[in-house]
Amino acid sequence: MSTASPTTCQPVLIAGRWRDAAVADQFRATDPNQNRPIETDFPVSGWSDIDEALSAAAAAATELRRTPPEKIAEFLEAFADLIAADAEALVESAHLETGLAKQPRLADVELPRTIGQLRLAAAAAREGSWAMPVIDTKASIRACYESLGPVCVFGPNNFPFAFGSCSGGDFAAAIAAGNPVIAKANSSHPETTRRFAALALTAIESTGLPPATVQLIYRTSHTDGERMVADPRCGASGYTGSRHAGLALKAAADAAGKPIYLELSSVNPVVITPAALAERGDALVDEFVGSVLMGAGQFCTNPGLILLVKGEASDRFVAAVTDKFAAATPGTLLSPAVTRSLGQAVDTLVTAGAKLLTGGGEPLPDRCARANTWLSATGSQFLSDPEIFQTEAFGNASLVVVADDVAQLVAVIESLEGNLTGCIYSANGDDDAYSPIAFALAPKVGRLLNDKMPTGVAVSPAMNHGGPYPATGHPGFTAVGIPAAIHRFAKLTCYDNVRQPRLPALLRDANPTGKTWRNIDGQWTCGDVG
Amino acid sequence: MSTASPTTCQPVLIAGRWRDAAVADQFRATDPNQNRPIETDFPVSGWSDIDEALSAAAAAATELRRTPPEKIAEFLEAFADLIAADAEALVESAHLETGLAKQPRLADVELPRTIGQLRLAAAAAREGSWAMPVIDTKASIRACYESLGPVCVFGPNNFPFAFGSCSGGDFAAAIAAGNPVIAKANSSHPETTRRFAALALTAIESTGLPPATVQLIYRTSHTDGERMVADPRCGASGYTGSRHAGLALKAAADAAGKPIYLELSSVNPVVITPAALAERGDALVDEFVGSVLMGAGQFCTNPGLILLVKGEASDRFVAAVTDKFAAATPGTLLSPAVTRSLGQAVDTLVTAGAKLLTGGGEPLPDRCARANTWLSATGSQFLSDPEIFQTEAFGNASLVVVADDVAQLVAVIESLEGNLTGCIYSANGDDDAYSPIAFALAPKVGRLLNDKMPTGVAVSPAMNHGGPYPATGHPGFTAVGIPAAIHRFAKLTCYDNVRQPRLPALLRDANPTGKTWRNIDGQWTCGDVG
Repeated sequence: MSTASPTTCQPVLIAGRWRDAAVADQFRATDPNQNRPIETDFPVSGWSDIDEALSAAAAAATELRRTPPEKIAEFLEAFADLIAADAEALVESAHLETGLAKQPRLADVELPRTIGQLRLAAAAAREGSWAMPVIDTKASIRACYESLGPVCVFGPNNFPFAFGSCSGGDFAAAIAAGNPVIAKANSSHPETTRRFAALALTAIESTGLPPATVQLIYRTSHTDGERMVADPRCGASGYTGSRHAGLALKAAADAAGKPIYLELSSVNPVVITPAALAERGDALVDEFVGSVLMGAGQFCTNPGLILLVKGEASDRFVAAVTDKFAAATPGTLLSPAVTRSLGQAVDTLVTAGAKLLTGGGEPLPDRCARANTWLSATGSQFLSDPEIFQTEAFGNASLVVVADDVAQLVAVIESLEGNLTGCIYSANGDDDAYSPIAFALAPKVGRLLNDKMPTGVAVSPAMNHGGPYPATGHPGFTAVGIPAAIHRFAKLTCYDNVRQPRLPALLRDANPTGKTWRNIDGQWTCGDVG
Repeated sequence: MSTASPTTCQPVLIAGRWRDAAVADQFRATDPNQNRPIETDFPVSGWSDIDEALSAAAAAATELRRTPPEKIAEFLEAFADLIAADAEALVESAHLETGLAKQPRLADVELPRTIGQLRLAAAAAREGSWAMPVIDTKASIRACYESLGPVCVFGPNNFPFAFGSCSGGDFAAAIAAGNPVIAKANSSHPETTRRFAALALTAIESTGLPPATVQLIYRTSHTDGERMVADPRCGASGYTGSRHAGLALKAAADAAGKPIYLELSSVNPVVITPAALAERGDALVDEFVGSVLMGAGQFCTNPGLILLVKGEASDRFVAAVTDKFAAATPGTLLSPAVTRSLGQAVDTLVTAGAKLLTGGGEPLPDRCARANTWLSATGSQFLSDPEIFQTEAFGNASLVVVADDVAQLVAVIESLEGNLTGCIYSANGDDDAYSPIAFALAPKVGRLLNDKMPTGVAVSPAMNHGGPYPATGHPGFTAVGIPAAIHRFAKLTCYDNVRQPRLPALLRDANPTGKTWRNIDGQWTCGDVG
């Protein structure tokens, strides 16, 4: 914590106005490339900030229910344009606060993706198919998804743009559904989030949305965060981050009957069959090392666990990865907290009996970083305590588990918790190994990949960036992919015997856009009723 | 509790076998028409029964994942046929245990509905559109809903067939998604549930499904019930019943990250605008009285709260309802527990200041019943303590709230918790009243009705039998309506770069039935890919 006076803190955005926070405390972000605090103070908001934000959001939610989807789409597009125009400063800020490379990562990959998501969300809001209108003409019953109320978004440390609380997927989905957002910045990149909020406010003003459609606070006490997601004025929450903090918010939201969508932790098992290893082991080494070490391994879908069957080919694979890990310059980690927790996770695995093949040790002295770390365990070791061997080591570390045979490998898979992804690398004619592995793995993951590393998460309508607990809080929802991600922030409303002019436009006889997909009497169509 | 020896207890159905329960205690149901216990002992199962059921269900779930949907459909249809053939005995048993009329209610309405739901679920399982396949050909990513694992179903007291744990909507939806069911009978009609389980086992045997596809226990301790829904082997749970018991199960399931779908309590507000009351007040009296007193008011969607604006027409309405309530013979309540809790709820309302217009007092002596009860409060009274005035009086009772004007009526609506339904009766040209009322009411309810009482719940694909908390546990799901109700018991799985023959049939290029709706590159179609 800084000792500077509270009045020098950056302002919060509440009810359409930048103003001094009700400062309960203050904090600074760190430049991980220097491992040194950045000289800007941000406030930890007291409850009165949150209380005011919730009231303003509730009023905005009511107003947004009267706002045509077209205007919401215009806001999202205006915001996307402003982001594109401010790209250089955003990239500069995010680089300073996260240590992520300006190019290609921030400027060429994450920012275009973020802008693309906002445009997709705009298109979805405009078209309305996301609301899944269902019309039963005989029974005179019609239903669709509708906005839910203020959505609190807690963004993660690892994607300051694409999952950012004021710019990312949860934000875009919540707005597209017609909800205001209260963004809780990730404490590791508050200035970047502040810039997004400023652009959002400009877009709000230019398109005439309610001023409190987007609000920003930087940090709260745990108690106030839990109170916020459980507040009667809150419609739902989205959280991406550590399991511990996420589960505390989930408990509070659950007890109040408020939906909360979580993306927590995942070790993202990668299985390579013996035949695939024999066929193309060397190429797989490069593919795997690239996926693990990219971005210092700080992806939700980073392959933290790789499963092999013992033999000469797997010995070679493990040795080659050891060499490459040792030779590669470790990437910079996002923050001192990440550096610390990565060290703790590696210690946990080593204490449990995992063998340290390379890496480990103390953090690097001058920046947030640790040696690339590669550990191994046998299938029997893993099965003796699956929970401990599934400890997520978020960062540039991975654990290889070498099973005695395919049967033991399947047993290891059966002992896994829920994960976002699971990958299987196999060879042609390899079905005897593939089938039992895939059958065991599919129920454990949100996305099953073949011959492909999990670190890319395409923005596709067929994407599932989700998975069984504890990867997320519910196995039926995805955090990436338009329109599916929007459903999370909506309520189903049914209109029974309601007269035409009183129905929402999406449910009237005439298709509101001529392009909206609706299910009419069991048939999907863009046509009108009758 | 009976004092008979445990060995005379009815058997439980576990792992395909009727066997003696691990009896922790025992109980008898009551014939509410006599207010007298029925002379059959049922076991309260200890944990070992549940443990065995969960293991058998987990094994069955694995086997069901390899079972073609066609076979699941055949089972549901065979079960429906067996129910139709056993109708007389089922109606006899349910009448004895619940006091519900054999005709028309049980034989002519609820049983045909139940059979119809099972057939609809069979058709949905066969067709596969419920799984919402989404195919992105360019990205080579494909996703659909898939089975989730064993589903624990807790049925309510008020629909022994249509919402029964071994026959009703949750059961049908869970099976259609490919999950085994562990049915927890409602303790008020264990024999009826036992009959359904026996028919289900016959249908399982004739169609060759895994024997543990349907299992039955009658009752557990609260602790064991909570342990069951949180068990790693459980996929999800469905619960319909009282708020108190439901929330205890929800807390346990939530903490373990297990989906649980709840239908709890609802007062189902009915609003009549002054113009509608002036136009057709007498007809509305009959409609309202019929809806409240039907089945002794024991429907989830029973109108327990009616909102009027003060004036002569509403005075007349209230007086006419008073007379009709006083004149009508009270229906029989489902059980001594319902009789007791109805009395408590009326006491709570009276203590809060509601005026007892008719009814109240002691229960009737010879059967489970109470006088039809009609209470009133002013809008100001309601607003002074909305929580207490929303106490659900499950049974033949209703509260009228008379507001000073439309503005106060809207304030009352804004103070409501989540409900399953909300009704508005209005007149032509009544939009000045209708609009603010509907705008306030829609976000509070799962289903908004016009000029229609809420007590009918059509089995329509557009139905939402759900609503915001505490009506249910999540505002995005419906418990009635095929296919939407099926999604609750499924997980989303995405296949990324998976080769054609390794994809689930629903996601391969060829449409598996030629009739399955799939979203291919943004277009809904029953066609093939390419």
